Amino acid sequence: MSEAERIVPLENALSEGAAAVDEVLDQILTSPEGPESRVFEAMRYSSLGSGKRLRPFLALASGRLCGAPDSQSLRVGAAIELVHCYSLVHDDLPAMDDDDLRRGQPSCHIAFDEATAILAGDALLTLAFEVLSSPATHPDGDVRSNLVGGLARAAGGHGMVGGQMIDLLAEHTDADFAMITRIQRLKTGALIGFSCEAGAILGGAPEEKRLALHRYAHDLGLAFQIVDDLLDELGSAKDLGKATQKDAAAGKATFVSLLGVEEAKRRAHLLAHQAVSHLDVFGEKAEHLRAIATFVIERRT
Amino acid sequence: MSEAERIVPLENALSEGAAAVDEVLDQILTSPEGPESRVFEAMRYSSLGSGKRLRPFLALASGRLCGAPDSQSLRVGAAIELVHCYSLVHDDLPAMDDDDLRRGQPSCHIAFDEATAILAGDALLTLAFEVLSSPATHPDGDVRSNLVGGLARAAGGHGMVGGQMIDLLAEHTDADFAMITRIQRLKTGALIGFSCEAGAILGGAPEEKRLALHRYAHDLGLAFQIVDDLLDELGSAKDLGKATQKDAAAGKATFVSLLGVEEAKRRAHLLAHQAVSHLDVFGEKAEHLRAIATFVIERRT
Repeated sequence: MSEAERIVPLENALSEGAAAVDEVLDQILTSPEGPESRVFEAMRYSSLGSGKRLRPFLALASGRLCGAPDSQSLRVGAAIELVHCYSLVHDDLPAMDDDDLRRGQPSCHIAFDEATAILAGDALLTLAFEVLSSPATHPDGDVRSNLVGGLARAAGGHGMVGGQMIDLLAEHTDADFAMITRIQRLKTGALIGFSCEAGAILGGAPEEKRLALHRYAHDLGLAFQIVDDLLDELGSAKDLGKATQKDAAAGKATFVSLLGVEEAKRRAHLLAHQAVSHLDVFGEKAEHLRAIATFVIERRT
Repeated sequence: MSEAERIVPLENALSEGAAAVDEVLDQILTSPEGPESRVFEAMRYSSLGSGKRLRPFLALASGRLCGAPDSQSLRVGAAIELVHCYSLVHDDLPAMDDDDLRRGQPSCHIAFDEATAILAGDALLTLAFEVLSSPATHPDGDVRSNLVGGLARAAGGHGMVGGQMIDLLAEHTDADFAMITRIQRLKTGALIGFSCEAGAILGGAPEEKRLALHRYAHDLGLAFQIVDDLLDELGSAKDLGKATQKDAAAGKATFVSLLGVEEAKRRAHLLAHQAVSHLDVFGEKAEHLRAIATFVIERRT
């Protein structure tokens, strides 16, 4: 990483990273000629042109810390974003969270229809693994397989899908702090964790650095979710581009309902601080990941 | 492959293969302790203990032809079966084909609920890639990545998902023979194709053999689908364990509605014969794949 890259302020780095990952996504999501192009329209609708691209940025920043070329990290970031977008499409379905609004636009099943949304989610998930398996992502097949395995574990029944399952069941139970934390760790934490560890896998980083990124991601992910709950409680649908206070309306426990607004804010700050402390092993090169921790707790959307 | 293995009649080989792949599936589908175990129950419900396991058997038989150990082919076969089962779970959903019956049992969304069925399908698909990425499947990372890429292409928007998209759209159009063939090639042909090519990938077979398996699978897959349409037209729900004559009731074009029963039968036989002709390069070792072609057109379920 050159000196010039290091001094780019986070905001610029984030928007440059988002633009670069969008370019990769645009290339990847090439539609065929036949009538099946409808599912590609829905895939493009659900993944291009919006979203913070936080996860791809974490892959990019961790890749830079571990010596991986941006071209590799961006493909991994794109694969992670495909998985994130698929999860939003399926979570928004009537049988799941039943959300009509996503990123300020009609959800995929509203803009298209339920069947197309189910298929678009399926195809986005599948495409993520195709992207990782390609030699364009990394020349070493072992590295590619490690990425596939890591993403699959983060996304599957022992990760994100498992978290969504508990989250749905928790609507009918009195979830306590331990359960809310478990939901977060699986539903959002696992994919944020893989985003940070991906850079270490790509760059062949030693165990010490991989572990540092894992710990950073763990604390960052929890802080991220607490802020999400705060925004759901205090934010407006207009700012967030999605329905707010749905959890409260459903009588569903959140970090905010369990801790209160002030304690939730305090915990988010504490976790962001703790996340940053794990980055010491990287020295000042980890500037962007440090700034992300602040960004995550100060964000308004 | 020993002489003893070669003379096992197809019926025994099929049931032994099914038992062996079920054992792998049972091991793979280990449930965690938490409340997310519900999604694993649904995954196990939808993939264990029934089904012909035709695709895993094709992987096993093609693996034997190309010198791959059974232990590797069975893991790939299990991954393919996970993808096949996920597709059935999602296709049965009310927003898709809306089928309450599958393999003689209530469909996943009936036995559980829609949200759980969506998640179970997602997790089955994800798990397939995790299985392929594991060194237990093959020691060479490049081979594992090739398997991941091949399965993803067969299953995604340019394969199975694309086929299901056209199939859903075809309900509202006058589909002709070319479109029905395209639906089949994508919806069922692609995964059958990968099942046969997987053995060549595992065994590092030369291009000539891989191509022969590809052509065999192409014709076999089309014969399989024509027979499926014949069974849907002529079979009983009791025998098939799923609703019949749904396509006719929906006014949907099938090979049978376009060709008539007799011509459809003639084509299926022709295709099975043609499929077998591609196997000459393997000599008499390809006995099981030859027998499968007969099995596919003579099956009653």
